[in-house]
Amino acid sequence: MLPKTMRINNKNHLEFGGCDLVEIAEKYGTPLYVMDESMIRENCRSYLQALKSHYQGKGEIAYAAKAFLTLAMARLVQEEGLGMDVVSGGELFCALKAGFDPSRLFFHGNNKSKEELISGLKAGVGRFVVDSFSELDALSVLAQEMKTTAHILLRVKPGIEAHTHEYIKTGQEDSKFGFGLERDGVLAAVKKALTMKGIALKGLHCHIGSQILDPTPFAPTAAIMMELLQRIREVFGIVLEDLDLGGGMGIRYEKEDEPVPIKEFVALVSQAVQQEAKKYNYPLPRLILEPGRSIVGEAGITLYRVGVIKNIPGIRKYVSVDGGMMDNIRPALYRAKYSAVLA
Amino acid sequence: MLPKTMRINNKNHLEFGGCDLVEIAEKYGTPLYVMDESMIRENCRSYLQALKSHYQGKGEIAYAAKAFLTLAMARLVQEEGLGMDVVSGGELFCALKAGFDPSRLFFHGNNKSKEELISGLKAGVGRFVVDSFSELDALSVLAQEMKTTAHILLRVKPGIEAHTHEYIKTGQEDSKFGFGLERDGVLAAVKKALTMKGIALKGLHCHIGSQILDPTPFAPTAAIMMELLQRIREVFGIVLEDLDLGGGMGIRYEKEDEPVPIKEFVALVSQAVQQEAKKYNYPLPRLILEPGRSIVGEAGITLYRVGVIKNIPGIRKYVSVDGGMMDNIRPALYRAKYSAVLA
Repeated sequence: MLPKTMRINNKNHLEFGGCDLVEIAEKYGTPLYVMDESMIRENCRSYLQALKSHYQGKGEIAYAAKAFLTLAMARLVQEEGLGMDVVSGGELFCALKAGFDPSRLFFHGNNKSKEELISGLKAGVGRFVVDSFSELDALSVLAQEMKTTAHILLRVKPGIEAHTHEYIKTGQEDSKFGFGLERDGVLAAVKKALTMKGIALKGLHCHIGSQILDPTPFAPTAAIMMELLQRIREVFGIVLEDLDLGGGMGIRYEKEDEPVPIKEFVALVSQAVQQEAKKYNYPLPRLILEPGRSIVGEAGITLYRVGVIKNIPGIRKYVSVDGGMMDNIRPALYRAKYSAVLA
Repeated sequence: MLPKTMRINNKNHLEFGGCDLVEIAEKYGTPLYVMDESMIRENCRSYLQALKSHYQGKGEIAYAAKAFLTLAMARLVQEEGLGMDVVSGGELFCALKAGFDPSRLFFHGNNKSKEELISGLKAGVGRFVVDSFSELDALSVLAQEMKTTAHILLRVKPGIEAHTHEYIKTGQEDSKFGFGLERDGVLAAVKKALTMKGIALKGLHCHIGSQILDPTPFAPTAAIMMELLQRIREVFGIVLEDLDLGGGMGIRYEKEDEPVPIKEFVALVSQAVQQEAKKYNYPLPRLILEPGRSIVGEAGITLYRVGVIKNIPGIRKYVSVDGGMMDNIRPALYRAKYSAVLA
């Protein structure tokens, strides 16, 4: 069950991406994050290749920077031909510092500050993913002041929430993110955006969950979003070019986790969108997917050094390591489980 | 229910420790931690005064730096005449950088690294609170190498765990911290420490919990620890001078929380220790208490700026602020609740 590029070498040390982990722990100290570049590149290529095979390449894979972002990572993502999604002024700053093409950035966030909106406009980010009426207002004012145009997607709550093994459909999603499907929701936002100066509406965005192992809910999500594009065409007489279905593809943390391969996931989503577009005789939108975890998660490990060991007979054995919440918050926050092995 | 130094001023702004919170939010930006120095000093003085009144001043109040540590805070603590407890090389570094008297530092931690032990020995910290046999071994070797002596307390699991409104006694506490009362536990550690070079055993330490609102469990804890000191005198013929009963005093987060006043808490602990010492005709030990939260918790607030507001009819209203887990992790980690008011 070792990740693809992990093996035991002839020194009986664990090796990852061709590196002897005992040696690099000694060289760089611990705790230490180790990312396998080859695996990251392979995952990027799998997404692009699948989009090409199953969707005529008419789309964009935007790496969700929240999953892991450094200057080197941003450069790698760009080299592989992906776009990138950023969710804060800090992530935007890092992307720009790395020389990332701003026109391929998607700027997310449900509570962007004025300073963040200005940074995004100044940089010329490809898409603002607008989350609320107040953001729409602020963006229009700022874009006009700065004599520029904000190209936007509207974030929609599609009424689907995906969990690891199931999904629910609700009439009105209880979420702080995006516009609802109901009255005063996305249609009102479209209407408003179309009349606003400094705003160019390019499409819709949604995101249904995280660490999704069963991709089934992506088909009804694609159906809801295509129906919405069709309604917008009917009501406003416009064809929106972008359909961003977000991220959320799960990975293997423990041996019982069985994520579907990247290719199968992209095929499923692509087929669903194409089928719905055909049904409405709607021009195939540019399909955007925003994978984060599924690009870097299995390509990263953390090395710790074992310290004090306390065996409390009949109760448990405590093994202390030289790290904790600061370098790995998921166990404390989500009760997430990891596997540990001796390098 | 506003904290002591909070009031509404004539501009109808909230004021804290004499500062107009709207003005300082504008001056320094948000999110912003605001600490009321006068309240911190008052809490420090309450502890010292109570120790003087109820324990002849024969002890030490060691501020638990984990609750809040900056250079200014370390200096303030020293000015007020308290000692300080540090739990990592980083906290030790900060204390030393602030010019804190190292002889009044207590160095805690269940997994101190070799580098941390060396730093503590080099600085000459007043007490190492030793948590395991392996730490004892390492400390003895390093102290000898550095031709110095480590003055230590042994951390004991007293078999009492205090919660907000109740406490439990267990035979063998399931904790990664300290030595058990049972076989191969604290008595074995005492025996070992007494024969070791570079080690001077000065006393015992325990800590029974956090955010304790009912101080009742401190009396049986004092009894267990005094009984242990008495057993050590019987078995090894030595009188240990320090008894450190740790911290854990709770504060008011919500209006239903009712912490006992600092003076009452110190009085209760002092009386319990004195009563037990008398029972065994044991010389009154130097009593050490390690309050952290109860010194700074109610003296601190965080200022945020309200951003996007979303009202989802029949569900809830989301109010976004310009901060989150990074500046206040307790809600996400412990489901802790806070009160919010508009400044």
